[in-house]
Amino acid sequence: MSQTQQAAKAAQTRTAITPTREENFPEWYQSVVRAADMAENSPVRGSMVIKPYGYGLWEQIQRALDDKIKEEGVQNAYFPLLIPLSFISREAEHVDGFAKECAVVTHHRLEKGPEGGLIPAPDAQLEEPFVIRPTSETIIGDSMAKWVQSYRDLPLLLNQWCNVMRWEMRTRLFLRTSEFLWQEGHNAFETAEQAEADARKMLEVYRSLYVDFLAMSPFTGEKTVDERFPGALRTYTVECMMQDGKSLQAGTSHNLGQNFAKSCGIKFQGRDGNEHFAHTTSWGLSTRSIGGLIMTHGDDDGLKMPPRIAPIQVMILPITKNDDGAAAVIEYAQKIAGELKAIGVRVSIDLSENRAPDKMWSAIKKGIPLRVEVGGREVEEGKLTHTRRDLGRDSKTSCTVAEFIGSVKSILDDIHNAMFQSNHDFSRSRIVECQTAAQMKEYFETTKELGFAKVPVALLDDEALTAYRKENALTTRCMPFEDEGRMVFIGKAY
Amino acid sequence: MSQTQQAAKAAQTRTAITPTREENFPEWYQSVVRAADMAENSPVRGSMVIKPYGYGLWEQIQRALDDKIKEEGVQNAYFPLLIPLSFISREAEHVDGFAKECAVVTHHRLEKGPEGGLIPAPDAQLEEPFVIRPTSETIIGDSMAKWVQSYRDLPLLLNQWCNVMRWEMRTRLFLRTSEFLWQEGHNAFETAEQAEADARKMLEVYRSLYVDFLAMSPFTGEKTVDERFPGALRTYTVECMMQDGKSLQAGTSHNLGQNFAKSCGIKFQGRDGNEHFAHTTSWGLSTRSIGGLIMTHGDDDGLKMPPRIAPIQVMILPITKNDDGAAAVIEYAQKIAGELKAIGVRVSIDLSENRAPDKMWSAIKKGIPLRVEVGGREVEEGKLTHTRRDLGRDSKTSCTVAEFIGSVKSILDDIHNAMFQSNHDFSRSRIVECQTAAQMKEYFETTKELGFAKVPVALLDDEALTAYRKENALTTRCMPFEDEGRMVFIGKAY
Repeated sequence: MSQTQQAAKAAQTRTAITPTREENFPEWYQSVVRAADMAENSPVRGSMVIKPYGYGLWEQIQRALDDKIKEEGVQNAYFPLLIPLSFISREAEHVDGFAKECAVVTHHRLEKGPEGGLIPAPDAQLEEPFVIRPTSETIIGDSMAKWVQSYRDLPLLLNQWCNVMRWEMRTRLFLRTSEFLWQEGHNAFETAEQAEADARKMLEVYRSLYVDFLAMSPFTGEKTVDERFPGALRTYTVECMMQDGKSLQAGTSHNLGQNFAKSCGIKFQGRDGNEHFAHTTSWGLSTRSIGGLIMTHGDDDGLKMPPRIAPIQVMILPITKNDDGAAAVIEYAQKIAGELKAIGVRVSIDLSENRAPDKMWSAIKKGIPLRVEVGGREVEEGKLTHTRRDLGRDSKTSCTVAEFIGSVKSILDDIHNAMFQSNHDFSRSRIVECQTAAQMKEYFETTKELGFAKVPVALLDDEALTAYRKENALTTRCMPFEDEGRMVFIGKAY
Repeated sequence: MSQTQQAAKAAQTRTAITPTREENFPEWYQSVVRAADMAENSPVRGSMVIKPYGYGLWEQIQRALDDKIKEEGVQNAYFPLLIPLSFISREAEHVDGFAKECAVVTHHRLEKGPEGGLIPAPDAQLEEPFVIRPTSETIIGDSMAKWVQSYRDLPLLLNQWCNVMRWEMRTRLFLRTSEFLWQEGHNAFETAEQAEADARKMLEVYRSLYVDFLAMSPFTGEKTVDERFPGALRTYTVECMMQDGKSLQAGTSHNLGQNFAKSCGIKFQGRDGNEHFAHTTSWGLSTRSIGGLIMTHGDDDGLKMPPRIAPIQVMILPITKNDDGAAAVIEYAQKIAGELKAIGVRVSIDLSENRAPDKMWSAIKKGIPLRVEVGGREVEEGKLTHTRRDLGRDSKTSCTVAEFIGSVKSILDDIHNAMFQSNHDFSRSRIVECQTAAQMKEYFETTKELGFAKVPVALLDDEALTAYRKENALTTRCMPFEDEGRMVFIGKAY
């Protein structure tokens, strides 16, 4: 279907995305990703191709988060992709959690096989196979053991931006793929108190990233035992409620206690002259966050990009009916773009040969926060017309270029604030407190507006309820900080 | 050996690094990498750990090159790490070049083996194995084939920053490791002329990166047939001459013609209404550049960082003899650091408990372009003492803080220019033109100052000379642009 046909259809159905969120939320999600040209499936089963617009968003997220991580004194480094099997085996719980579905490297050479195709060369089998890192606690722990000798070497604060791989059978773009991109932080400390404080601090860094940049209002808290990172003492999480009421675990931070320090040998001479094991943390946030952003902010016309993280904050659409005056309109657009760039606004001009409605729909589906239309009349009058993506399609405002340049940053802030508030109000409105198992069951069986049941932690011991939860894929999301471990959120999750 | 002992030894021997460059260049290189705390070998054979200071340098290189790449209209994206064997097999020459030593993934699950350890699960063998990308022409070509339908979709300009893997037996930090980090660009065009111009333009981007940021003066030209990228029509290269006279291939750009377009099916409806294959290019620059920087600029006291790419441009060393006044000195150092940051200078303060000489030697070995010493007297007088890394250890200058803030950027530029000029003069002085095979042999057999022999291309047909070259590991480095294909550089290489 051409863009023109899509636009015509949208004009009929009143939405650019089919199906709508209400009709079929999972399919709506895939349509939005496709319509915004963010990513697609690849011929490598379970792996995705992140297209330029999707990767541009990841670059913005990386920059914002990297700044925050560096502000905490953490340094970036890079560790090997391949992990020896013996490393993975070091931490008992870790093995059970991560040594299952992963990519195993067994050979280091190919050769022509009997049928002419390439095969792994039988004489190039590795003595010890490797796995492609599903996470790097063990390999980074090995370096830490070398680097840490004395309490003076602590804290040791490291982070790496990289790809990881966990073999997945059922995959969904950004949300669950075998290979994904993330950062993983690994910190080591002298004391248990420092590690605990760090695990909570890095979770707060994630929360602030969502609030300040992605205009999302996550719930934060501790995971229950069964949802902990394998090998961790405690796992903290940012849980974001999607528009269908399901939860997306959107970043986790783990207090690993001395478990990995013991299995990797991270020990140091303490202030008391004795040898001690370090206390470590790890924390990660991935390209999953992009899926969360889409399911939080998208509507039936497509994506809505939060302005502070949008790869393109303002899209200028030159409207040229015929060749007469086209050059003047484009020159005018370029002048405006130059002024926006000068004040640090990320701007692009749609110079494609598409028709005006197609340009508009393309910008809408990509979720560009602000569209600016300029045509012959605007050139004559020194004006422009701008439209906010988060308001209705007809919420046009006309003003002079100078007025726009003077107000564009506060308009972008307004959009951010409105998007944040909308997600905050929505997610908080979907919390239902249930004091008993019966109340919780009734809530999930009758609600038309799915969200989280907030129940006393003691209810987790109720065996009948546990069976009910399993049958209905209702998992514990987190024990929110605000209730100091007394309550737990239960809901469906991605 | 403690830093103090090292410093004492250096005072005796007059150098911080042993052996010196003259004594043993390869060992000197490893010592510099270790002394600057850039990287180390990992327990994964052939893979390195890039430590924070080395990774900080890579981040600076990435930022500088990424800006230049984006200025050319190229967009970043991300493609799968794993490549199906059938993809690698598509381009005949490519198979021979890259399907040899690579990491082969054959299983997607581990299980407990009979002896208790983990083994690849026999029932989880992949139908079609994957290789970890040694380069991504085939997998990106597969996406391009889908994305390109019409001449309107061209040019398509893509780049990815990623890790790649080529199994190596003999490895050296940064210069040759199984896994390394790089960017790989992949562009597609309508015409052969556009692809040829692009391959040369992206090489020029690399040259300018070396000149503008790494203070290096590479030779540029075309590779001879035997040194071409497997599957390319023409390969262009930036060759940098190291201080031992050997060459480092420090970035390549390939005109792939229609070879990969044909094997991957990248075709489009042209302006003439007919179907055509696209013309593609690919171009890459890796963490090898860091090895080149070290071997170009380092001296017998360690690394010298070119200022525009230095992770730390100015290191402030607070000199506090006893606790009296230490707080005032540190406060003074922080005030200076604040002023430097405000004008965009990357500055750090050595707040370690090390003694003053140890702090100085640490900064020297890390190659910090400018050291600033402040002590009690400087605080009183409102002054500071600064020392350029590229000049002698005693080239101290005393001035007021205001004078320093006013001149620091031009001092950093002076250092950059001096370092560039030094490499330029050195490398150009090591070119010896030889018109005959006899002259060339004599040059390589008698020279005490190894460099490149510049010989007529016709000499490559001389079989006796070819045999001599093979025996002595003398390879063709490039046919320099300036001679329009008539001459070729021959030399030793990393």
